[in-house]
Amino acid sequence: MADIAVLGHGVVGSGVLEVLLTHTQSITRRAKEEIRVKHILDLREFPELPYAGSFTKDFKVILEDPEVTIVVECMGGLEPAYTFVRKCLENGKSVVTSNKELVAAKGAELLALAQKNNLNFLFEASVGGGIPIIRPISQCLAANEVGEIAGILNGTTNFILTKMIREHMGFEEALKLAQELGYAERDPSADVEGADACRKICILASLAFGTHVYPEEVHTEGITKITLEDVAYADAWGGVIKLIGQVSMLENGHIAIMVAPMLISRESQLANVDDVFNGIVVRGDATGDVMFYGKGAGKLPTASAVVADVIDCVKHMKARKYLFWEEARPDYIEPFESIKGDFFLRIQGDCSSDETFAKAAEALPGAARIVRREEAKGEAGVTVENISEAGIRERLLRLEESGVRVLDRIRISDF
Amino acid sequence: MADIAVLGHGVVGSGVLEVLLTHTQSITRRAKEEIRVKHILDLREFPELPYAGSFTKDFKVILEDPEVTIVVECMGGLEPAYTFVRKCLENGKSVVTSNKELVAAKGAELLALAQKNNLNFLFEASVGGGIPIIRPISQCLAANEVGEIAGILNGTTNFILTKMIREHMGFEEALKLAQELGYAERDPSADVEGADACRKICILASLAFGTHVYPEEVHTEGITKITLEDVAYADAWGGVIKLIGQVSMLENGHIAIMVAPMLISRESQLANVDDVFNGIVVRGDATGDVMFYGKGAGKLPTASAVVADVIDCVKHMKARKYLFWEEARPDYIEPFESIKGDFFLRIQGDCSSDETFAKAAEALPGAARIVRREEAKGEAGVTVENISEAGIRERLLRLEESGVRVLDRIRISDF
Repeated sequence: MADIAVLGHGVVGSGVLEVLLTHTQSITRRAKEEIRVKHILDLREFPELPYAGSFTKDFKVILEDPEVTIVVECMGGLEPAYTFVRKCLENGKSVVTSNKELVAAKGAELLALAQKNNLNFLFEASVGGGIPIIRPISQCLAANEVGEIAGILNGTTNFILTKMIREHMGFEEALKLAQELGYAERDPSADVEGADACRKICILASLAFGTHVYPEEVHTEGITKITLEDVAYADAWGGVIKLIGQVSMLENGHIAIMVAPMLISRESQLANVDDVFNGIVVRGDATGDVMFYGKGAGKLPTASAVVADVIDCVKHMKARKYLFWEEARPDYIEPFESIKGDFFLRIQGDCSSDETFAKAAEALPGAARIVRREEAKGEAGVTVENISEAGIRERLLRLEESGVRVLDRIRISDF
Repeated sequence: MADIAVLGHGVVGSGVLEVLLTHTQSITRRAKEEIRVKHILDLREFPELPYAGSFTKDFKVILEDPEVTIVVECMGGLEPAYTFVRKCLENGKSVVTSNKELVAAKGAELLALAQKNNLNFLFEASVGGGIPIIRPISQCLAANEVGEIAGILNGTTNFILTKMIREHMGFEEALKLAQELGYAERDPSADVEGADACRKICILASLAFGTHVYPEEVHTEGITKITLEDVAYADAWGGVIKLIGQVSMLENGHIAIMVAPMLISRESQLANVDDVFNGIVVRGDATGDVMFYGKGAGKLPTASAVVADVIDCVKHMKARKYLFWEEARPDYIEPFESIKGDFFLRIQGDCSSDETFAKAAEALPGAARIVRREEAKGEAGVTVENISEAGIRERLLRLEESGVRVLDRIRISDF
């Protein structure tokens, strides 16, 4: 019998209880031990639930119960989750969490603490919901140098972009629909401004390259500025716009990491990841591109990932798991200004006369024009290849000086 | 230091050596121990190789070396691989294999032997090459009831079908090209007749549902009869033809399992798996559809999966891994005749008069016609829903009796 405690009875926490109760037999068989939820921490009361008697409002009850060997943290947010998880790891309890904010902010510290005390700190559910990704990266791809990772890591923004692409719905309208359907929160900023995707790519980057990356250090753009015009140009170019979290190891030992909307070629597997789904491509030197796809959020997918970690934890009570990364170090992250890439630009001017494009071509050597069937009036779309962020900024300044207004600038992904 | 031996220095075996030699540092870090290849079994000699001194022609040297704790079997084929693997497991050596034929034919027996002797028998590389799939199914999805699995499991046939779909190349021509590019063997029958995909779906079914499924028991169709006309009808219907290995758990406790070319809707993730790539969808009750995608074959992808298993094996020397399934049992596999599904039919007759379709509609209640922009002369395509194999056979007999020839019959996948 393995006794566990669950912190937080919200969407994920109640899902964990549901998965444990509906799959008791198969979980016991797989864990080779029965798993019992002895305590559930929540300030609310749920008298109607069959396990109503297991609720407590006092974290100390859990911390001081020597029978509890695994604590499942599903509270979300940094505090009090961080304090509670720390205390658990300091007091001989392994921790499983679905909390991406916690792992992105405190992963290195908590992993070191877990290692020191020979405990597990597992967080499969923190990225990609029910999609197995943390474990495959750390384990199945162990004989591989991972060079790059790119992913659609946020279901809410992917739903909005899918509506914009497929149904030509404007951003605001699509956001409203997402809110109505429960995909977006009332304050949608963590999703649409990219913070959620940023935390997830930080976790993946930390895991794949062994050094903690903090979200504050990562250039993050959301999708609030994406227009239907951009979507139409992307289509004419041969692709779609997706919010991509991306990290790659550079030859100088730095990593290039960012979250930004990007043009993705229709040929890419990521282009076909639609609606609330997530897709993550891991580029290894031996495996080539491997993609993981599925529902990146939701009660049961996320809960099943948490429970899979709990099972793993029960089976490895005496043998610690292998997840680990070092504390962050200075000069590890390539300055955003230096990161090279391809860009799509939407510029204002009279296209029929080709004058605008001529000016663009002058300011942007090598620029190629995107030809649309139904040309938007008074503007043009061009692409520019292999130029640094600093370089493109300087050129666009020059372009603006020549009287051409730059309406939008979106990166082109090479995935 | 962990001493291992590699059986067979062919494509995969030499790849294993290459991965171990080029990634020594990171592999040692991950395995927490250095991995040394002490012996390589091959009848050929490779004097030019840096590890030429490690070759042996005598399996006994490996079997009787007490320092060798893990044996990597990359010989392929059933014999002598089976005899060697058995002897290793009987003599205290864990085994890692990439041999799908061996696992599909002898998995239950070898897993039981490994369990009895507290050893590991791992085979991540046997399905999906470098795509992590065995481990995610058994581990990450542990808190999930897997209900169905469907996959494009053979890269060669997928390459041929992609050429037929995209470039309207005929089957024979596409096969010839695949052979020229080294994707197909001189005798391509194991690929094009579906035997390779069958072994892989057997392994996945055995793992997911816990009972061994032998390839001989699985209805297997290849792609040799697929024509460009079929491809055109599939396109008009809204999809593509793919060779699918599929298994699902039925309510009566039987499994429905088969390998067959199927029509896949363009909306499906599997429809976008092209060329030599593989894609496997695992449908769980909690996670929904999760897809794994990547190169399903090739020297380095496969070798990296083998080496990942070796690393896992080194880390779990004292704790056995969890892979296990029971011996096959009678009445477990649903008779093919009873399996219900949707079908596409291509029938011969004069379409312009609609007479053929009228006859089809009479023999096949509920049949829907596929309208093509450029109608093929003298034939029609129809779809029929939710009918058993026995049922459709009987109806097609009736149709033929009414003078309409059935040219082709292809299942429609619900993935």
